[in-house]
Amino acid sequence: MSTDLAACRTKIDALDRQLLQLMNERQRITLDVVRAKRESGLPVFDSGREDALLQKLSEINPGPMSSDGIRRIWLAIMSESRIYQALSADPSEESR
Amino acid sequence: MSTDLAACRTKIDALDRQLLQLMNERQRITLDVVRAKRESGLPVFDSGREDALLQKLSEINPGPMSSDGIRRIWLAIMSESRIYQALSADPSEESR
Repeated sequence: MSTDLAACRTKIDALDRQLLQLMNERQRITLDVVRAKRESGLPVFDSGREDALLQKLSEINPGPMSSDGIRRIWLAIMSESRIYQALSADPSEESR
Repeated sequence: MSTDLAACRTKIDALDRQLLQLMNERQRITLDVVRAKRESGLPVFDSGREDALLQKLSEINPGPMSSDGIRRIWLAIMSESRIYQALSADPSEESR
């Protein structure tokens, strides 16, 4: 393996570790959002906010990743948040 | 909106900006990997390395995100890398 290639892989590994930490932190805060919404009697899911987030991320995306790519990745991230929210759901939420 | 909810959203917005920067940095380095592989005459795609990466991320995942969730998100990230690599491809790569 060339030195360049090894150096690139070391950088990607470090980035992946940072991404992993940040995504888990995002997931923890997502659960805080669910709790805060329940306390305020607000609906937990808000597709309008998800759409606005995707739009904003596309606008501030510096590249080289495409905005379509960003959209696909965040849909995956937000989908995991929804799964996590559902698994952490208060049963009383079901009837709202 | 409660103060808690507003604070959580501010934190998520900040995390999303960091994630956006890191993913774009990862994408840039991915292109460096492609260049280094071409210079070394190595095949660009390496499904074994992707599998090993997914396995390692699952092992070091601190949670609360599930390992299945991590796997789904990284498949989306790596899929974007492949799209980007294909768009940036040297035409001579096609015949390898």
